[in-house]
Amino acid sequence: MSTQTISRKADFPGMVNADGSPWHYLDTAATSQKPQAVVDAMANALGRDYATVHRGVYSRSAEMTLGYEAARRKVAGLVGGVEDEIVFTRGATEAINLVAATWGAANLKAGDRVLLSVLEHHSNIVPWQMLRDRVGIEIDVCPLTDDGRIDLDAARQLVDERTKLIALAHVSNVLGSRLDTAKAAELARSVGAKLLLDGCQAVPRTKVDVKALDCDFYVFSAHKIYGPTGIGALWAKKDILDAMPPYQGGGSMIDRVTFEKTTWADAPQRFEAGTPAITEAIAFAAAVDYVEGIGIERIAAHEDDLVRKARAELAKINSLRLFGPDDSAGIVSFQLGDIHPHDLGTILDEENVAIRAGHHCAQPLMDHLGVPATARASFGLYSDEDDIAALIRGIERTMRIFG
Amino acid sequence: MSTQTISRKADFPGMVNADGSPWHYLDTAATSQKPQAVVDAMANALGRDYATVHRGVYSRSAEMTLGYEAARRKVAGLVGGVEDEIVFTRGATEAINLVAATWGAANLKAGDRVLLSVLEHHSNIVPWQMLRDRVGIEIDVCPLTDDGRIDLDAARQLVDERTKLIALAHVSNVLGSRLDTAKAAELARSVGAKLLLDGCQAVPRTKVDVKALDCDFYVFSAHKIYGPTGIGALWAKKDILDAMPPYQGGGSMIDRVTFEKTTWADAPQRFEAGTPAITEAIAFAAAVDYVEGIGIERIAAHEDDLVRKARAELAKINSLRLFGPDDSAGIVSFQLGDIHPHDLGTILDEENVAIRAGHHCAQPLMDHLGVPATARASFGLYSDEDDIAALIRGIERTMRIFG
Repeated sequence: MSTQTISRKADFPGMVNADGSPWHYLDTAATSQKPQAVVDAMANALGRDYATVHRGVYSRSAEMTLGYEAARRKVAGLVGGVEDEIVFTRGATEAINLVAATWGAANLKAGDRVLLSVLEHHSNIVPWQMLRDRVGIEIDVCPLTDDGRIDLDAARQLVDERTKLIALAHVSNVLGSRLDTAKAAELARSVGAKLLLDGCQAVPRTKVDVKALDCDFYVFSAHKIYGPTGIGALWAKKDILDAMPPYQGGGSMIDRVTFEKTTWADAPQRFEAGTPAITEAIAFAAAVDYVEGIGIERIAAHEDDLVRKARAELAKINSLRLFGPDDSAGIVSFQLGDIHPHDLGTILDEENVAIRAGHHCAQPLMDHLGVPATARASFGLYSDEDDIAALIRGIERTMRIFG
Repeated sequence: MSTQTISRKADFPGMVNADGSPWHYLDTAATSQKPQAVVDAMANALGRDYATVHRGVYSRSAEMTLGYEAARRKVAGLVGGVEDEIVFTRGATEAINLVAATWGAANLKAGDRVLLSVLEHHSNIVPWQMLRDRVGIEIDVCPLTDDGRIDLDAARQLVDERTKLIALAHVSNVLGSRLDTAKAAELARSVGAKLLLDGCQAVPRTKVDVKALDCDFYVFSAHKIYGPTGIGALWAKKDILDAMPPYQGGGSMIDRVTFEKTTWADAPQRFEAGTPAITEAIAFAAAVDYVEGIGIERIAAHEDDLVRKARAELAKINSLRLFGPDDSAGIVSFQLGDIHPHDLGTILDEENVAIRAGHHCAQPLMDHLGVPATARASFGLYSDEDDIAALIRGIERTMRIFG
């Protein structure tokens, strides 16, 4: 499939600079640009259609409530779930914190084990450390294969009947490596552990079906799949969600409040205290519509194509160290000689090329790789070969400068 | 001051119906409509200006970071604080939960007392009940005066040296009654308790200065002050914030992560895990600019004028029971004979009048008033006498229908 059949830069108002020149945005793994359809959905929801949800007796509020709940249905469908399995959160980070603070605090006790991996994002490490400080769980860390995949064969030695949860990135935000989800599910089932998948990087570039994945929790953020900031989602199996205690207290999550005793609403409302991110949910649904209009398989094929081309070009540069597997998903991390990634990023910026340089919220992985930071180029549906060419030109210029 | 000098319906795209007819929106206490300036700020931030914050080495991200931190400064200024005392949260509900789960869990122990009042919103009740379940604090409940104010004279009998926190609504979301903040601060100081004020209804219609209020925590939501959903703020005294443990774990809130030990970033970053509500912060700042461009004192005077007129008109209806004090702030709650508020709200909706009917997330107050629900009309800077006239007409029609 030619990359030109899908790149849709014209749909994205952020893909040009203020002076009209093209912007080579290669930081989609940090956050994606938004199509005009998402901007418009947000503007209409904040403007002509605006009202609160769930409470108003007037028709505009009833309509907004329908829109909000339709968004929940749409977002559930994106990952193969149904609407009452979806909790809207601020993002994937809050979703993992919610699971740790509710399911975790209620079900895990001192001595129970949680298995993570070396490549996890801080958002899938720190909440479990905070739970460790609170209840005394033990955290085990799955090593990686030489090419940067989570080594689930090695993990077999790290789990036993005390392992209550396995929490892993579906796709690594640094290396782009894909989890062997079938093996992860099998591993979890073998010891009776729950399986949580961090889908932040998978959802924008992989067909996700929580039923087929056989996971218990799946988390993702809207802003990484062409949607707005301020919203994300937790998908959880209905029976697990129904049994979880609430996270935050306030309006909308209660059944009946007295000072003596308060009772809770059913899930998912129980987990959405206060006025929700209403317009963000509407815009999130518009992003899902946009992505489904193109087809996630086409986006995946497009990015796979770009990754192959980028890795091939980058591999030609002698001093460049490529991280991660050859078939990384949408993401390519590398180190250019002894040039600090920040210096590379700054020079690339002068060339209108935006990459990420840093630890990518994955310091344990940096320690494992033996670097303080990497340079990372990541693709979206709007990326094309021109972006790769601009990246390579910028790297060559940087090498000349640092000579 | 004539109300006509301030009402600015034309600035608000939500203030007309789809067919162009005027909409009499009297549910601003639930959520406010947004001026076009806020819609535009959001659209630009999501569109042409979009990038992540705090991490990018490229210029667009650096600019967005400046915008995000300028928004923090702007929001701090709205309540008389400075930027590093402001934590962005999803809203006031999350802000109170954050205080309860961090400051509360770290500083309160079994037998410590927290003083609330009968009129608190569920968001200022349930988080303390959840803390009660977790650490064993006691919750005391301040009664109300006959006209619906928090009776701080009575409160003197409910505090002692075990009282560690007094948490009260600055303005009641149901009755519009204003807290005697000087007396509340004096009460807190008399026993060495901290003072938390729920400013959701005060910030849109009162000049707030946290220094003059002498409070320790102040919380508010953007969507009630003409800003977007999905964001709000916790203001806290810097020394308290600096000493508080983190709330959610993840990216941006850490200093250094290893699996053995993780260290935290300084406040306020320590409390903002994950990609924040970037575009919401930008739009929140635009809302503050809009409000400050008019002047909060003018808005307050305008709403006071409307409340006087509305209460005078409503008082002429014999079967109508008015709740709350005569000088309520922007909010008028009432009961029309034995007509259920939902029925009233539904008929008013046919007349293009939007009120709130329900328990307003304040069930203990409903129990106190002896009603399951009230009808509530609430005003904003865009409200005018036409809205009051439409409300009265709708009430008269309802009375004829229920004759």
